[in-house]
Amino acid sequence: MTIKLAKSEQTLQSIIQAALRIAVVEGLAAVTLGEVAKRMNISKSGVFARVGSLEALQTKVLAEYGRIFAENVFLPTLSEPRGLPRLNAIMRLWIGRGTGENAMAGGLHTTAAFDLDHLESGLRDQLLEWVMTWRGQLKRTITLCIEEGHLRPDTDPNQLTFEINSLMIGFLHDARFVRDPQVHERAISAYQRLISTYRSFSYTG
Amino acid sequence: MTIKLAKSEQTLQSIIQAALRIAVVEGLAAVTLGEVAKRMNISKSGVFARVGSLEALQTKVLAEYGRIFAENVFLPTLSEPRGLPRLNAIMRLWIGRGTGENAMAGGLHTTAAFDLDHLESGLRDQLLEWVMTWRGQLKRTITLCIEEGHLRPDTDPNQLTFEINSLMIGFLHDARFVRDPQVHERAISAYQRLISTYRSFSYTG
Repeated sequence: MTIKLAKSEQTLQSIIQAALRIAVVEGLAAVTLGEVAKRMNISKSGVFARVGSLEALQTKVLAEYGRIFAENVFLPTLSEPRGLPRLNAIMRLWIGRGTGENAMAGGLHTTAAFDLDHLESGLRDQLLEWVMTWRGQLKRTITLCIEEGHLRPDTDPNQLTFEINSLMIGFLHDARFVRDPQVHERAISAYQRLISTYRSFSYTG
Repeated sequence: MTIKLAKSEQTLQSIIQAALRIAVVEGLAAVTLGEVAKRMNISKSGVFARVGSLEALQTKVLAEYGRIFAENVFLPTLSEPRGLPRLNAIMRLWIGRGTGENAMAGGLHTTAAFDLDHLESGLRDQLLEWVMTWRGQLKRTITLCIEEGHLRPDTDPNQLTFEINSLMIGFLHDARFVRDPQVHERAISAYQRLISTYRSFSYTG
């Protein structure tokens, strides 16, 4: 019985990974039970039995993407000194994730946001919750920059969070759609310029 | 015969407007010949006869959106003095277009870019061409700011064009998806901060 449960869980994980591979490149709307079944070479009813509904699968895909994003962009930076070194590390990892061969692996939450923006649905609510959780983490990192004296005391953390997010959404647009080979340098340079306007005169790190 | 042609042209225009209304809210992928026919209360074959193909209709929708965008955001600013007054006017109109009741009327080219980014298609090529034409106009406006001495001579017009575009794509994300009531003020403030880093010390306009 334990083994059977484990196998069932394994199949579910494989389904989520197959759906995620579709979603990151083609968008969340391209994820269908039929398409996932085809790629896994199993029956559509087999997929349905594991995930329950398309929306449940899409929710799991967004959650799994969020987990991978946090694991790659946020968690490694917690070993950096709090303040600007940590924020800089986040930006290096975040920008690095959307560049070159990885260009299409970044931005699922952003592409999905533009897919779902006109809807009132549980899926939109879930995505919004994740987006706001990530913004909260970013804002907390920025607040630490102020507390450490790296950014000016009159810095508005909500405004800077918006500005960094906008930069990254524009970066994703140019990496994915325009396919600009210089987009990595453009984003780094834009971030440095932005931070220069918030930086404390006394901090030289 | 002339009257018949005129009527046929009128029907085509009505089809494009109906398709545009779907596209700006729900995205370009939501435009189908069937959905347009339903909303206009005519037959699907009637729509097909006028437009030829779905891709032809979607192309016309993107072109019509581009025409409206230029008419609302770019052309009115040509009467402003060249340089920063004109760039500021563009930003006021652009940000104003995506705010409040208009939130869903802005950004079709951006939402479509995230829809089409993984494809190799005539539609993507058309959209990219329009996006780059608009960037060219923005870049030209920025170059005039440098020539007029309003922005510093070492300003990189391509970099500033990227930064303004990114800001506006992030703005669209927060207006449409996050539905942040403060997004208008955030965007204005972000633009002012950005420009302050490029501004000539000698220009006080």
